[in-house]
Amino acid sequence: MKKYFYLCVMFFLLGASPLLKAQNYIGETDEINSILENIKQFSQYYMDGEYDQLARCYTEDGKIFPDKTDIIEGYEALKKRWTLPDNVDVLYHKATPLEIRIVEDTAYDYGYYEGKTKWANGNTVAFKGKYVIVWKKIEDEWKIYLDIWNKLE
Amino acid sequence: MKKYFYLCVMFFLLGASPLLKAQNYIGETDEINSILENIKQFSQYYMDGEYDQLARCYTEDGKIFPDKTDIIEGYEALKKRWTLPDNVDVLYHKATPLEIRIVEDTAYDYGYYEGKTKWANGNTVAFKGKYVIVWKKIEDEWKIYLDIWNKLE
Repeated sequence: MKKYFYLCVMFFLLGASPLLKAQNYIGETDEINSILENIKQFSQYYMDGEYDQLARCYTEDGKIFPDKTDIIEGYEALKKRWTLPDNVDVLYHKATPLEIRIVEDTAYDYGYYEGKTKWANGNTVAFKGKYVIVWKKIEDEWKIYLDIWNKLE
Repeated sequence: MKKYFYLCVMFFLLGASPLLKAQNYIGETDEINSILENIKQFSQYYMDGEYDQLARCYTEDGKIFPDKTDIIEGYEALKKRWTLPDNVDVLYHKATPLEIRIVEDTAYDYGYYEGKTKWANGNTVAFKGKYVIVWKKIEDEWKIYLDIWNKLE
């Protein structure tokens, strides 16, 4: 039993170590956790089609930089851009930050995102990319100020 | 003559005002100017094919996020990625920051870039896009730490 326990610990450490090594969080733990929570929350809002909440993840002057468009800024424009047609469901969305660094009321964060959408005809589309986000702390809440991404392959 | 002078001033102000309005530099003037200079220098190195200098615009652990590749990191890999084939000339390259904000030893900067390349067969290709850069001050010099961009249209 003891042997089995050590084996489990070993596998856990082996499995977890590349992840631990790859992630670099610089800042007070509470602040980092707050940003990590917001990253998760963003994906959840997207999966739930809560576009109003999604747009409120950004500062009032928050900007997104989707490929092949101009910079898009502000609540209404962001909400419109993120809103998917009724016949599309986001089955899955996840962002994996490789580094978060907080400097005073500002933070940057970069990493990978991935997801899967399902269309009314049953087709699914998987996507993967990388991103850079600049966060601002507004009235004690971390909000996205700049959000840019592109494809992984 | 006096009338002509006022006309010139008026045209100058009319012409310059949208640019002044659109650009937002937050930080000590010397530091902002240093970043602005580095942005220009980067374009110049690219136009001159000075890939060694170009790669040294980044921190040692600097990262670029080109579309359809993984994140590329470090001097050698950056130099390799930026180096164009011998039969391509960069006729023109310019980045126009809309905002630069310095927070301690870190800064972010976003805006537009544009350029034109010429191939040995005489064909030219113009390109335009938008970018976000995270800068770090290393031994009194502002270096690019994160550099991500995508197309405008």
